[in-house]
Amino acid sequence: MKLHHVIESQQFSVPALMELFSRTMQMEKIVRRGGTKDYENKLMATLFYEPSTRTRFSFEAAMVRLGGKVLSTESAMEFSSAVSGEFLEDTIRIVGNYCDVVVLRHTEEGGAARAAAVSPVPVINAGDSAGGQHPTQALLDLYTIYHECKTMDGLSVLLIGALDTGRTARSLAYLLSKFERVKLYFLAPREMQIKPDILKHLDEHNVTYELLSRPGNVLSQVDVIYQTRINRERLERTDVDLRQYNIDETVLHSIKRDAIILHPLPRSVEIDPAVDRDPRAAYFRQAQNGLYVRMALLSMIFDSEELSLT
Amino acid sequence: MKLHHVIESQQFSVPALMELFSRTMQMEKIVRRGGTKDYENKLMATLFYEPSTRTRFSFEAAMVRLGGKVLSTESAMEFSSAVSGEFLEDTIRIVGNYCDVVVLRHTEEGGAARAAAVSPVPVINAGDSAGGQHPTQALLDLYTIYHECKTMDGLSVLLIGALDTGRTARSLAYLLSKFERVKLYFLAPREMQIKPDILKHLDEHNVTYELLSRPGNVLSQVDVIYQTRINRERLERTDVDLRQYNIDETVLHSIKRDAIILHPLPRSVEIDPAVDRDPRAAYFRQAQNGLYVRMALLSMIFDSEELSLT
Amino acid sequence: MKLHHVIESQQFSVPALMELFSRTMQMEKIVRRGGTKDYENKLMATLFYEPSTRTRFSFEAAMVRLGGKVLSTESAMEFSSAVSGEFLEDTIRIVGNYCDVVVLRHTEEGGAARAAAVSPVPVINAGDSAGGQHPTQALLDLYTIYHECKTMDGLSVLLIGALDTGRTARSLAYLLSKFERVKLYFLAPREMQIKPDILKHLDEHNVTYELLSRPGNVLSQVDVIYQTRINRERLERTDVDLRQYNIDETVLHSIKRDAIILHPLPRSVEIDPAVDRDPRAAYFRQAQNGLYVRMALLSMIFDSEELSLT
Repeated sequence: MKLHHVIESQQFSVPALMELFSRTMQMEKIVRRGGTKDYENKLMATLFYEPSTRTRFSFEAAMVRLGGKVLSTESAMEFSSAVSGEFLEDTIRIVGNYCDVVVLRHTEEGGAARAAAVSPVPVINAGDSAGGQHPTQALLDLYTIYHECKTMDGLSVLLIGALDTGRTARSLAYLLSKFERVKLYFLAPREMQIKPDILKHLDEHNVTYELLSRPGNVLSQVDVIYQTRINRERLERTDVDLRQYNIDETVLHSIKRDAIILHPLPRSVEIDPAVDRDPRAAYFRQAQNGLYVRMALLSMIFDSEELSLT
Repeated sequence: MKLHHVIESQQFSVPALMELFSRTMQMEKIVRRGGTKDYENKLMATLFYEPSTRTRFSFEAAMVRLGGKVLSTESAMEFSSAVSGEFLEDTIRIVGNYCDVVVLRHTEEGGAARAAAVSPVPVINAGDSAGGQHPTQALLDLYTIYHECKTMDGLSVLLIGALDTGRTARSLAYLLSKFERVKLYFLAPREMQIKPDILKHLDEHNVTYELLSRPGNVLSQVDVIYQTRINRERLERTDVDLRQYNIDETVLHSIKRDAIILHPLPRSVEIDPAVDRDPRAAYFRQAQNGLYVRMALLSMIFDSEELSLT
Repeated sequence: MKLHHVIESQQFSVPALMELFSRTMQMEKIVRRGGTKDYENKLMATLFYEPSTRTRFSFEAAMVRLGGKVLSTESAMEFSSAVSGEFLEDTIRIVGNYCDVVVLRHTEEGGAARAAAVSPVPVINAGDSAGGQHPTQALLDLYTIYHECKTMDGLSVLLIGALDTGRTARSLAYLLSKFERVKLYFLAPREMQIKPDILKHLDEHNVTYELLSRPGNVLSQVDVIYQTRINRERLERTDVDLRQYNIDETVLHSIKRDAIILHPLPRSVEIDPAVDRDPRAAYFRQAQNGLYVRMALLSMIFDSEELSLT
């Protein structure tokens, strides 16, 4: 599979996902033996218009473990004083001439696509606004399910949180729709339920789903629990008990013995730290998979260029 | 040529410039084949007291493509809370002991010279205040003219913008005075015209020049158009039409077929993005030359040390 | 000696200190010949919750000179908006999976110990609050005394400054108590004198000491002067002449011919720049030793892991 820009999770077909995941598993082995030097001439620029240390470190560690080098911005504040709408494009044209791949976190929805349109080198979207895309997060979420459950087909997946705005939950629902016999449960306060655009997409792909505002006994039925945060400030009703959406040790008694609990992190109160000890708590393994998935993506991009040259 | 500190563009003689430009052309080839490892034991510290991602990335990419390593500050804010005028000097003495070259962007005019006076390793000035020096920008501007026009001798060069304060235009005028039969045109609103110190210098070196407040037909006569920004806020008169200083597609019809348009970037409205498509728009090539010029400077500095040791 | 986390200076026994110092001297030679590649597969993350460019550069230069790679945060501001007390632990768990060692500067006393408790890789404390620990500073201070004076036994050491809160002076007094026949003098305004916990510790270890509020003739009697800053804002009395605690050229006439003057830097007015010329002014050599001590610590940590595996 040839890969150039990585802009949105939807761009990946099921075969492409499977090749990516196969490569991701190889990357885990490569890291175990101390990394590779295969990409030692490659230079990555992380251009972050807002800080995200975890995501940035994950990309930069991925590049270093591949043998490559990094130019880094923690928070490209000067760019936010941009005098003109052309500024992002000009910056990408310049920075793209200094490096072999640009990892961009931008503050505006569609920023990554605008950058890709003019960039002399591949652009990887590392998040473009809360309402936008963050494809590498979506890919590592999906990979973690695949790696932990050995398949996506036939899984029951429960997504919890502020599902209307949560880009990670939205992207995961979208990606899961590509697989066979998946059943999705969306658990959220009524005003934060998943939006119709996702439901329409699921309908078109014949994916079964249920909308829930209370957990009921769904927790005992699912293979994957994908937990995200709910901000009380967004709730108009004061009578909603948010604790029913949290996961604590009591919940552990009611979920399947081989279920897994995921969370994009960082978490707040929605998962009790006491849960961390349980082997079904997979969120730190999930974060670590971010390293391997990003190594796999970078290596696919660089290998695609080699293919183009030969 | 031996090179230690790089503090101001005036320090370079014509033979030194020619050696630098010859080396710069080699660097372009070295980048094309993936860089070198010749300087793999060298460590550069970029000490930026104010952020400038483009300049910093250009230096850091230069060091990486030479095989070297980088210590980086995006914005050394803690230094700005300096308790004493001695602080910059102390910092340079300390940081200079950790690395092989310091790239300094400081907020005070003369900061780089102060640093060089105490530094245990070479200092490169990456800009010391708007009114100060930014010699690597001046060198890459000059190199771009040389590379695009194959000579400096006999060129007609038009500089447009707030020429009184613009350090890039001032430095370029200064450097061009070193060459034969150069003719300079300065186009600016009256109150932003180039200052007498530069004109005096040009007179002393028998350089022909003209001061213009309106473009008239100068655009059709010049080989190089060096465009910079005009801030409306600085204009007292409200009747000045700033659009006459901008470059758009209409202007392209009136300039020479082999003229080039330069800009230190970032731009605002003074060059219409529609101009980018024209092969005479050389400003992105100019930015890329920044990488090669900085590689050439760094390699000259490191090679000079080897010479000193033998 | 096996070394994993570096949390507080007290964790080092005298034999451990001697092994560290022996290794530190080797590191100086390694830097002179351009560094080593022995640790080229190792990746260090510098996670700084507040900026400290000098300390960060010292660690990062140490890692680079050992051949290793670095992930860097200048100021992990996003972390300060932490929504939960678990946040540091979660971040360490994630970042620790991307790298081989974490260098942490935290804003809360005990932050490094909390991080070490959950980290999958060794944690080095690079300072956890003004009242907390900064063990690598203490170790480089002690190493400088050892390197300059060839011994610690029998030395007379004068500590000057706001000794009640100064963590560097407190740690140094603590470490010196491990050696034979050391005599300590504490010179400070009464309300900033060294605290009883340190004096109790010295009593228990039979260390002789004197508390002074005026220099008198102590300066002529000591082998080491450890100078730190006094903030006038903290003084309630307005009649205290702070100049008596400063070191200027006059003081140089009264100190021993082979005494050394140390300062953790950055300094304010407490050491006159005119003193820098005197060979007894050892504070810049002290700062440089920070590089070698940190290289020694990192190499001990990595070598300990190898030992564990075999």
